[in-house]
Parts: sequence; C-alpha cells; structure tokens
Amino acid sequence: MQFVMDCLTVNENGNLSMAGCDLTEVARQFGTPAYVMDEMQIRQNCRTYRKSIEEYYDGNGLVLYASKAFSCKAIYRMMQEEGMGIDVVSGGELYTALQAGFPAEKIYFHGNNKTEAELTLALEYGVGRFVVDNRYELDMLNRIAGEMGKIAKILFRIKPGIDAHTHSFIQTGQIDSKFGVALETGEAEEIIGYAAKLSSVEVVGIHCHIGSQIFELEPFQMAAKVMLKLMATVKDAFGLELKELNLGGGFGIKYVKEDMPIDYDRYMEAVSQVVHQECARLGMNLPFIVIEPGRSIVASAGLTLYTVGCVKEIPNVRTYVSVDGGMADNPRHIMYGAEYEAVLPRNPLGEPEMTVTVAGKCCESGDILIRDIALPKVEPGDLLAMLATGAYHYSMASNYNRIPRPPVVMLKDGKASLAVRRERYEDLLNCDL
Amino acid sequence: MQFVMDCLTVNENGNLSMAGCDLTEVARQFGTPAYVMDEMQIRQNCRTYRKSIEEYYDGNGLVLYASKAFSCKAIYRMMQEEGMGIDVVSGGELYTALQAGFPAEKIYFHGNNKTEAELTLALEYGVGRFVVDNRYELDMLNRIAGEMGKIAKILFRIKPGIDAHTHSFIQTGQIDSKFGVALETGEAEEIIGYAAKLSSVEVVGIHCHIGSQIFELEPFQMAAKVMLKLMATVKDAFGLELKELNLGGGFGIKYVKEDMPIDYDRYMEAVSQVVHQECARLGMNLPFIVIEPGRSIVASAGLTLYTVGCVKEIPNVRTYVSVDGGMADNPRHIMYGAEYEAVLPRNPLGEPEMTVTVAGKCCESGDILIRDIALPKVEPGDLLAMLATGAYHYSMASNYNRIPRPPVVMLKDGKASLAVRRERYEDLLNCDL
Repeated sequence: MQFVMDCLTVNENGNLSMAGCDLTEVARQFGTPAYVMDEMQIRQNCRTYRKSIEEYYDGNGLVLYASKAFSCKAIYRMMQEEGMGIDVVSGGELYTALQAGFPAEKIYFHGNNKTEAELTLALEYGVGRFVVDNRYELDMLNRIAGEMGKIAKILFRIKPGIDAHTHSFIQTGQIDSKFGVALETGEAEEIIGYAAKLSSVEVVGIHCHIGSQIFELEPFQMAAKVMLKLMATVKDAFGLELKELNLGGGFGIKYVKEDMPIDYDRYMEAVSQVVHQECARLGMNLPFIVIEPGRSIVASAGLTLYTVGCVKEIPNVRTYVSVDGGMADNPRHIMYGAEYEAVLPRNPLGEPEMTVTVAGKCCESGDILIRDIALPKVEPGDLLAMLATGAYHYSMASNYNRIPRPPVVMLKDGKASLAVRRERYEDLLNCDL
Repeated sequence: MQFVMDCLTVNENGNLSMAGCDLTEVARQFGTPAYVMDEMQIRQNCRTYRKSIEEYYDGNGLVLYASKAFSCKAIYRMMQEEGMGIDVVSGGELYTALQAGFPAEKIYFHGNNKTEAELTLALEYGVGRFVVDNRYELDMLNRIAGEMGKIAKILFRIKPGIDAHTHSFIQTGQIDSKFGVALETGEAEEIIGYAAKLSSVEVVGIHCHIGSQIFELEPFQMAAKVMLKLMATVKDAFGLELKELNLGGGFGIKYVKEDMPIDYDRYMEAVSQVVHQECARLGMNLPFIVIEPGRSIVASAGLTLYTVGCVKEIPNVRTYVSVDGGMADNPRHIMYGAEYEAVLPRNPLGEPEMTVTVAGKCCESGDILIRDIALPKVEPGDLLAMLATGAYHYSMASNYNRIPRPPVVMLKDGKASLAVRRERYEDLLNCDL
C-alpha cells in the first residue's frame, strides 16, 4: 500500500487518482476546499462487515453504520442499498435518515441525553430500537410510548468496564463516563429488572461501546464475554431472555502509516468464537449480534483537497504552508491532536524535500492541520490532499470565521458528483434576522 | 459582583435576570439551548473603549470590533450605531457585514491566507484597510488592485516578539507563528521597503496582535514601544511616515471568578503614555491608534441557557448532569480545556449542595462543558445558565451529531428578540443532494 487509503492510485499522468478520477481534475471542477469520497470503497467496507457476519455467524446479526461519523442524505441512501442498518444519535440525524427514505425499523437511536421531543419524534416514526442510556430516559420513554399506545423496543447501554487503551477523550467503557449504566455496581442488572416490569417498553437486548480507534481484537472479545455473562445473570434473575447483543464499534482506522488496524472481517471471526464458547458454557441460545462501525466505513474512503496559498519559511524555525481551509472544516487536530498524512496530487510519490507545518486560514494560532510533515517542494497554488478525512470532518465542520462549509464530492467509476453542495455566503445568513 | 457577568442580577422572584428579563421566561419563550445576550452591555463595552480613546488620546484613533468573536448581521448593525469600526477575517464575515449595511471603509480585512477571491471581493467593495500578512498576499493584492485600477490601503501584520504569558494555542506574537512577518529578523522592515515601491498599494501602517486572554497592561506597552521603534526605522530607512498603529486585541475577560481582567479604559491610558513618550523621544508625530477588542466586547454580555436532562450519580466517582446542548454549541472546553461558571436561573445564589460535571448530549465522551462545579441541588428539567459565552460560541458552533444551532436572543430594556433564529431540521438539509 503506497498510501494510508487503499482506494488511491497514481494515474498515467502521474497524478493522484481515486475511483478512476484524477483528483487535480476534481479540484478544478468543484473548487477547494472539498471533501472527496470513493463511493465503492464505502460500499466495499459495508460488504466486508456484512460478509463476515454471514461467514462467521450464520448471518445472525446486523451491521449498523454509526452515522455520526458522516451524516447526509446520500450516505443513508447508500446504506439502505447495502442492506445496512444505521444508528443515529439525535433528532437531526434521524430526520436526515428519514428524509433520505431510510426505513425507520432499521434505525437504532443512541444518546446519553435524548430529549422528550426526540423520543416523541422517534416513536412517531417507528424507530426500530432505542438504546436507553439511563433511568430518567427509560421512564420518559415508557411514559411517552404509553401515551401513544406503543411499545418501544429497547436495549440498555452498559458500561462493561473494559479499558481499550485508547485516547482518554474517547474511552467510554469505564465507569467514569456520562454514558450508560455500570455493570460492576449492579446498576445494569437493576435497571433491566425494573424495565422488565414496565408496560410500554420491551427489553430486547444490551449494548456496549468500549472506545474508539481500537487496534486490537482482545478488548472486543473481553467485552462480548462480559456482556454474555450479564445476559445469563438477567435470565437467571428475571427469567428474561435477551435476544440482542449490540457490541458497538470502535474499530481503528489508518490515519498515519504507523497505525495498524485489524482486518475488519477478523473481528467477527474472533468475536464469534467467544460467543459460541460462552453461550455453550452458559447454556444460552446464540444472540442476534449487532455491530456499529462508523469511522471504519467512511474515514479511509475520504480525503480533503485544499489549495496552498502562502508558503512561509521562518529560517531556523519552521515552514508554514497555509491552505484554504482549516479548523472550520477539520477541528480534529486542534481538538484531539489528531495526526494525518498528506500528499501533493500532482506529485503523490515525490521524494520529500522539505518538512512543513500545514496551517489553516482561520484567524487563530492553533489552527494547524498537520505538524512537521515531509513533502516534496510545495508552492503557492499547489493542491494538497489530506488523507483519511471521510469521518468526523464534514460532520464536525463549523462556520467558524464565517467560512462556508466545503462540498462533499462522491466519486464512482470515473465520475464525480455532489453529495453535499458547497455552502454559499448567502447560506450563512439563513438564520440571521 | 455576584456573578462573573456584570449584567446579571436576581429579580424579585429570586430568578436570574438580565437586561430586565427573567431568564426562566426567556427560556420558556425561545426554548433551549439558547444563546442570550445583553444588548446594552455590548454597547456599553464599545463606549468604554471609545471613550478611553477620547479621554487619553484626544480621539485620535479607532476601535474595531474583532468580529470573529461573534459575527451576525445584528452585531454589525449595532457596531455601526456605536461608531465602531470592525475587523473581518474572511469573505464570509465581510459579506455578512456588508449585508448588514456596515460601511466598507471602516472595515479592516485580516487573515494569514486570504484567497484571491476574497481579496477581489474586498477590493470591489472598497474595504478600508487590508492587514497584509505576507509577501505572497502583498504581490497578489498589488496585482489585483492594479488590474482594477485601485490603490489598496494596507497595514502589515508584524510579529513583535512579545510573549504575553498566555495559553500556547493563542500566543501569536512570537516568531513561530503562521501570522505575519518577523521584526527581529529584519523581515518586517524589508517587506515595508518593498511595498513602498509598489504602485497599487499604499502602506499606511503596521499591526500586531500579541495574544489572547491577556490580564496585564505591560505586554501591550512593550508592544507599542517596539512597534513605534519600527515606525521610526521605516521613516529613517525609506522616508516613509506610517500614520496608523494598530495594536490588535487580546484583552482578557472573566470566565471564572479567579480571572482578573484589566479595566479596559486603563489600557488606553497606559498605552497612550508610552506612545507620547516614545514619539517625543523618536521625534515622530503621534500615530492614529487602532485597537481590536473582540472577546471583551461580547463574551461577558452573553450566556447559554440549557435544560438539564439526565442527572447521573455514579457513587464514589462523579455526578454527571447532562444538558440539551454540548460541544456542538460550545467546543471551547474540548478544544482548549476552557473553564466556565454556571448557575441555576431559578436559584442563582443558592448554597452549593453537590459537585457535578456538566456534560453535553453529543455522542462523545469528551463532550463535557464544565468539570467539577459546585451547584445547588440540580434536577432533571432544571434550567442551567453557562456564563460568559458571548464570544466564540455561536461563531464556533457546528452541527456535529446533526444538532441544529441554537438561536441568539438579544435582550434590551426588559424585551427579548431574536438576533439569529434557531436552526430547524430542514435547514440541515439545505446543501444535501
């Protein structure tokens, strides 16, 4: 692999190419900055996960695309065509998915603090599952569903206590988290017992999410084991057989060449073994398994094209290469210190000649995109491609400095089309009075 | 002062009040989350700065509102009424100001990487000053202005080498910065000499900005001294008398009770002394002085109203209070570790009963707004006001998790009106294809 994204090649003109499209041409057609994605790579990622459930778990499961990674109508349409479920974390994601025609029954609704309005909307539309976070939400959901004469199918979000050795911001399995109910304190068992007696919810399963950017299989296996044990406890204590085990997401992706993600189909192979073993040992039926990849579906299928403006060499200090985007379209460096690779589309495999810091155009010193990256000679007017930006970029973009958000260009079979158009200055005034 | 915001009081019902409006009523009327601002406090802040220039510098200067802190049509209208200039950092801010009817000649255009399209737009509209960052921009501006038969009035952004002892993200005076040209290397003098010979730009002054959230006067005085010396050098070397000295902004505000901002009118008093002294010593005329407060105009005039949802007590660990907003409307905690005070509008002076962590509703563990704050008893449904959120909140807000951005409600004389309406779910699909 020459690049951190599998879907990149170098074409006969020596230019960076994706899905049969020359990226210098894409920039010319759509302008910069622009998010550019490879549709077939996204679809392929979905198929890898789906196939692994077929192969290693007799198809007894569902893959949900965790759509907070990248949410727009186009991606929901794609997910529907690929036979995926989705998870949403807000009324806005739910609304977008429904507007795209996504079937409500294949939607899981997540969130640590869903509002009454959101729960009502979700019940009205017949969302498939509510992943209930806490007792307050449970009571509210039971009440609203009761008032509407509906039964809400629910899973509980459990903190399984697994430490996935990852960035502290995105560790969510431990007890000190705003999400879910704790296993180790007995809180999980207690809330399930309580919910089992409520009249307008049906407890169908449990959910956990042990973190993000995880590069090992073992924590997932541990989580599965711990969760199955809870299912057995619940069966013993309340005679309640939970049918769904939702193991969340967190599969790491390759941002920089040092990152070594797992093969995503090995996940299901490894987890399936543990589930078979444990169910046999505990005398339980095999549960329906749900997994929730988000980042690993879209991140490596996308890049951001920028145009270089000023190249500022500060002798003996640093060379700043400023591009026409920045923290408004990619807040991940300033927020998490996230690292990226970048290449020059006109010379993607060129020998490094200079070490530069890629800065944005926002009026803020912290508006840096990449620190100290070795690149071939960069000049004003050059195109720069920042790689693996398909997840948490468009979805996190702001209008900071009143900068319009870039478009999302979808590439397929040598053709480029807009999934999301570029914002215009007029759009910025949409809500202004 | 009971609160970190001067404009807050407690009304006869014991509720938090701003500009004569009961904030529990404001929340009822406009919903939550909502940004709420005190118009007269904003105007008063402008007047304090303007008056200090009258009083201590014979009115020989201009106060610019640094509008990246909070940009929308309403604020530009207000700035015009208050006789302020503004600075903008992008075509989008410029467009918004012009749409609000703000006079182009009182606009200063900043930015480390202005694009050709932005410079062209600014020249077309007759923007008053370009604060030129670098040689690349200078040549481009001179070329475009020449093509349009115009003369662009410019200042140069200088790195004066002053360390304002502040957060490393927002230190911008030192040499290792993407902004400006360095003084100590001779780069500043060189570019001014070069520009003086160009036919379509007129060098009228120099600019510096030494950082943000500065609580001392001394660094500003040092900066003024250093900049005046450069003016003298330029006069000697090129016979060029620079008339404008733009000293930027960076005046700290009170986020938490430990913060001790300077009195903003003492700034001009202190700087004026140095400027008079140095000009006498160097045999120079007094320059026209421009200052650029942004945060200190709006931050302490605004707060965010949230509704509490889940209150999650994790025994012996932490209590999470989740609100109906989060990092989408306030990314400053996750980005900078920014600290805030918060109060309960129904009980603003109540004795603290519990220490809680205020979490947002975004699907991310790092979505925390305040860690470990002591509050009176908080319950689901309570209103929570996060204070001093008037700057860099609305302007930095995203649609992460597809959450619509809150409205901006302007309060004045007991009346509340919308400056920016709440985004609707439909708005989120504005650019979706």
